[in-house]
Amino acid sequence: MTLHLPLGFRFAGLHAGIMKNPQKEDLTLIHCPGGAVAAGTYTTNLVFAAPVALDRARTPSGDIRVVIVNSGNANACTGERGMSDCREMARLASDAVGAKEPQALVMSTGVIGHFLPMDKIAAGAKKAAGQLAEGEAAFLAAARGILTTDQGMKIASRQVELGGKTINLAGMCKGAGMIGPQMATMLCVVCTDAMLMPAEAQAALKFAVEESFNCISVEGHMSTNDTVLLLASGAADKKPLGNKELPLFEAALSEICIDLGKQIANDGEGASHLITLDVRGCKTREAARQIAKTVANSALVKTAISGADPNWGRIVSGAGYAGVAFDPAGVDLSINGHLLYERGAPVPFDAKTVSQSIKGSRDTSLVLTFREGNASVRFWTSDLNVDYVRFNSDYTT
Amino acid sequence: MTLHLPLGFRFAGLHAGIMKNPQKEDLTLIHCPGGAVAAGTYTTNLVFAAPVALDRARTPSGDIRVVIVNSGNANACTGERGMSDCREMARLASDAVGAKEPQALVMSTGVIGHFLPMDKIAAGAKKAAGQLAEGEAAFLAAARGILTTDQGMKIASRQVELGGKTINLAGMCKGAGMIGPQMATMLCVVCTDAMLMPAEAQAALKFAVEESFNCISVEGHMSTNDTVLLLASGAADKKPLGNKELPLFEAALSEICIDLGKQIANDGEGASHLITLDVRGCKTREAARQIAKTVANSALVKTAISGADPNWGRIVSGAGYAGVAFDPAGVDLSINGHLLYERGAPVPFDAKTVSQSIKGSRDTSLVLTFREGNASVRFWTSDLNVDYVRFNSDYTT
Repeated sequence: MTLHLPLGFRFAGLHAGIMKNPQKEDLTLIHCPGGAVAAGTYTTNLVFAAPVALDRARTPSGDIRVVIVNSGNANACTGERGMSDCREMARLASDAVGAKEPQALVMSTGVIGHFLPMDKIAAGAKKAAGQLAEGEAAFLAAARGILTTDQGMKIASRQVELGGKTINLAGMCKGAGMIGPQMATMLCVVCTDAMLMPAEAQAALKFAVEESFNCISVEGHMSTNDTVLLLASGAADKKPLGNKELPLFEAALSEICIDLGKQIANDGEGASHLITLDVRGCKTREAARQIAKTVANSALVKTAISGADPNWGRIVSGAGYAGVAFDPAGVDLSINGHLLYERGAPVPFDAKTVSQSIKGSRDTSLVLTFREGNASVRFWTSDLNVDYVRFNSDYTT
Repeated sequence: MTLHLPLGFRFAGLHAGIMKNPQKEDLTLIHCPGGAVAAGTYTTNLVFAAPVALDRARTPSGDIRVVIVNSGNANACTGERGMSDCREMARLASDAVGAKEPQALVMSTGVIGHFLPMDKIAAGAKKAAGQLAEGEAAFLAAARGILTTDQGMKIASRQVELGGKTINLAGMCKGAGMIGPQMATMLCVVCTDAMLMPAEAQAALKFAVEESFNCISVEGHMSTNDTVLLLASGAADKKPLGNKELPLFEAALSEICIDLGKQIANDGEGASHLITLDVRGCKTREAARQIAKTVANSALVKTAISGADPNWGRIVSGAGYAGVAFDPAGVDLSINGHLLYERGAPVPFDAKTVSQSIKGSRDTSLVLTFREGNASVRFWTSDLNVDYVRFNSDYTT
């Protein structure tokens, strides 16, 4: 995979001592020396972490210089002290790169309810600033620095020609557990060298997140720290994107976010299947999403897929309690292309064949079709295995 | 435990061949020769089973003579044929006891999407009618006949003195998986020899279910078959309960339903803990219940308890995405009496002591206190263990 790194950014990632494993990067800096337009979308959880409060107040912005991220500690549910630690983190990062404190954004992820080790963050920020560099190695170190329980890095990039200029987009994200839709239960930064106005950046990001991170779940528990940032340096072209280029940029941004979102669902803790759920024929997209989310979050649906069990009753009954009105006699369901349920009644099918199709691939496709309208949604989730339970039974202690 | 069996009922339970295990009763008859006032509450899932449709149309009623229940097959998502099978089941039961078809109610539980083996049900109903009897042995056989994946029988009874008369109530229920609140994801019948008007019976049952079965969950997946029936024979006293007695009867009925509901949560598939979650200080009871349900259904909360891990951030963040407005700075949390979080900030505590208190008992108490009002709710759920996943990964195939 070729990384299309945007101009105007420098990256660093290193082990600052927040996480126990000395091999694991746990502090990331992203520096935009010339300043970036920045947009953000955040968790809708009422209990939100200090960095969410800080970033929310600062975006959209016309001049962000640095983003500092730590993994291993979410700085959530930490009260007033958490908020002042977060502001101090912004100050440390901006000092380290010679920017002003309001030009910094902060992201944190990890365990909830512990105070940040500020001495380690101070030392780490200073050291990371010294390592800031363009190029792939630095980008990858930064992408590793934001991970927690992830099995591996989650990155995506695209190059698009817009108005005769080459525009690059590169994103990194993290997330494997506590993933529930309604804003990306994870951290993500997408950097681009396109030139955008703050309002354009915010609108493009909102659209992309709606199509991607708001359509994934692992277990449906909405995090306190969800943050997706878009940073646009404008370094590829010193004039803003035109009305013709903007939709193309938005499409590329959506593609990156969908790519990253699927990587999160696929890395759901302990997952053995990436489930793609298409809900079609609904009155509105929101109705389709509500049904998809309810089905995707059902432990009974997830365990059926992990057991390669075409237990379609769980899927249909999951739709029935989503809180969306529909005619039960107008519902069809297919698993991996096999029609199992049509117009509200079972269709004879060979259970062994369908089971084999689930067993034989990491990807499972569920298509739920209603006869209510023309709106649809595509949603991604993981299956549920004993490893998820094992893993989450012992996380803090 | 003494069983206080109500007068005016006869019971039977036997193996009719619907379930594979020949030792397992899978067909139950409850006969009320003199007729019973009957009330019912049902699943709110849009995808509801045929027997739910039949019973919903027939309750409240002033004259029900027989209830037939099968386990092993839910007769859900079975379309028109399922509905006609269900009516045939009502006819078989009423014929077997010499009643009229509209005097029968039907309940089914088990796998979704398979047609009922009507020949086995016909033979079973006839045979069961010949075994109908008063007394404990018959009641227990009936209570076993409604079980599916349950570890054991779930029964409860009470005796109350009302207006100088002795009134008996005895209930049986089933449920261990696909348990999500908003109407009792399970089957339950409570029989009493009190005399009630149909509307009184319906109101009393609605109140009791609201306090009990609507406040439990295992994984939050709402079933297609939830049914709670109240049958009142009036055999203890041929005059209706007065205004003074009715609230006492309602209290006894609520007690029975709470007792049975807790038995279901405690028997959540693979569960090692019964979690009692008190949510206090909310604006309305519905707000408290919404928060309780969201926290109770979080896989991250459930796995933390199964791992004896006082990971309170998961509980507080679960409340935050319940869709209920509250001030995060006004939240307290206690686990087993240990205060871990107060007014939105962590309180120092000994993690080992709290962990030991979880490990040392099957019962775990969580108390979430808000500062929004005076409404509260008590909610019961199970923890989440690898056995739940193992069990549900292979149920139909």
